[in-house]
Amino acid sequence: MTEVRRYAFGLEYDGADFAGWQIQQGQRTVQAAVEHALGIVADQRVDIVAAGRTDAGVHARGQVVHADVHCTRTPNAWLRGANSNLPDDIAVIWAREVDADFHARYSATARHYRYLVCERGPRTVLARRHAAWSYRRLDVTRMQAAAGLLLGEHDFSAFRGAGCQAKTPLRDLRRLEVSRPGPEWVAFDVSANAFLYHMVRNLVGTLLVVGQGDAGVDWPVTVLASRDRRRAGPTAPAHGLTLMGVDYPPRYALPGYTGPSDCVDAL
Amino acid sequence: MTEVRRYAFGLEYDGADFAGWQIQQGQRTVQAAVEHALGIVADQRVDIVAAGRTDAGVHARGQVVHADVHCTRTPNAWLRGANSNLPDDIAVIWAREVDADFHARYSATARHYRYLVCERGPRTVLARRHAAWSYRRLDVTRMQAAAGLLLGEHDFSAFRGAGCQAKTPLRDLRRLEVSRPGPEWVAFDVSANAFLYHMVRNLVGTLLVVGQGDAGVDWPVTVLASRDRRRAGPTAPAHGLTLMGVDYPPRYALPGYTGPSDCVDAL
Repeated sequence: MTEVRRYAFGLEYDGADFAGWQIQQGQRTVQAAVEHALGIVADQRVDIVAAGRTDAGVHARGQVVHADVHCTRTPNAWLRGANSNLPDDIAVIWAREVDADFHARYSATARHYRYLVCERGPRTVLARRHAAWSYRRLDVTRMQAAAGLLLGEHDFSAFRGAGCQAKTPLRDLRRLEVSRPGPEWVAFDVSANAFLYHMVRNLVGTLLVVGQGDAGVDWPVTVLASRDRRRAGPTAPAHGLTLMGVDYPPRYALPGYTGPSDCVDAL
Repeated sequence: MTEVRRYAFGLEYDGADFAGWQIQQGQRTVQAAVEHALGIVADQRVDIVAAGRTDAGVHARGQVVHADVHCTRTPNAWLRGANSNLPDDIAVIWAREVDADFHARYSATARHYRYLVCERGPRTVLARRHAAWSYRRLDVTRMQAAAGLLLGEHDFSAFRGAGCQAKTPLRDLRRLEVSRPGPEWVAFDVSANAFLYHMVRNLVGTLLVVGQGDAGVDWPVTVLASRDRRRAGPTAPAHGLTLMGVDYPPRYALPGYTGPSDCVDAL
């Protein structure tokens, strides 16, 4: 009866009203809410491990966690039970039993983020919780050119937030695409094997300086080479950022990240 | 100095936290917030007239209002002044001086609404404020076929909410398109010269019954012919509905409705 089973879960959440991922005394956090809800379904204490701990205000469409439990539950039982015990700003979107060697954080081979900016004169209302706002015109072609120079494996110390606990600043930046999914929208799609603390928001904040015409296309790669955080642009606001998905080796057969299928999907 | 000038304004708002459009004692309403903000800019009391009074919970991307004032302000002065005095769930997105014969309600030649449904097993989190949710599979082809039978000028009494104050139930339904802008999304684009109270939500609620397979494609047109509200489907929830835009004769040269340019735009 005490056989341990490992389950993986996909999570969607709106980060606006959470003090981030990690449990903190007296704070509303995603981890605490999910552990509480899964614990009710499992009828035991449940500890979860996430692919990545998102900052306060950052959203997720495809966060992945795992947990070990001493019970058997169908995917549908997990979904229905957890979602009826979660607040409306978090949902479990899939559940799967996985092999004991699966680890939400260490098995992950890539993380995919999307950063959205609404570019127009008046501030955005309907997207205010999920997109940053720029009243300044952004030059996507210049940002894309600058972004291309940052791809590959590098020491990303210049884009590493203070307090980052990673052992190495080396990261493999595999995708950094700047696009205009609609006339008023600019999207940054960012993928890497893993990210340093605040790395996506620092990359976006630096590219925005280029997009506004306040720095040259070559400036971000100069910042990268300096390894000096003080030279990078400002950290872009948390609420524009969404963790879209996490990749794992195919043998785990988890729902993979297929990209934003459309723009609604990105919100 | 007391020359009266008429200005028109485009409004975007998130209806979730408003008790609807119209001023009500002790309630948070869109009209009250906008009149307050414009009044500060004009330095006088401002009364506004809207193209359509949206229900509690209904959003707008392109509501249009007009107001008469005894002052002159540039469009930019209106925008900056009003938006700094509005809460973050309302914004003025354009302002124009208009001829004295312009009337936001009576000059309007068409209203455009979009209703969004998220169709998937788990409830939606990121779109929960702007889309209804259906865990049942919806057949868009069947809904589109049913919708086509409702187009044109008809007596829409069967889709008229209780308490509707319109003088006539005749409306010219010019567009009722059901589409799938993304794998998990169903959109209803609805345009008419004008709408009865709850008419869009009743049309959508009735088409959803067809989409779920609980009624035939010919059923909604039978309901229409009956002119009996009790025969129609349930009223779809307010929070899935957005007033996208309002058309006026070209001589007023107001920013026209160009349709949702992309899906983000629809939220």
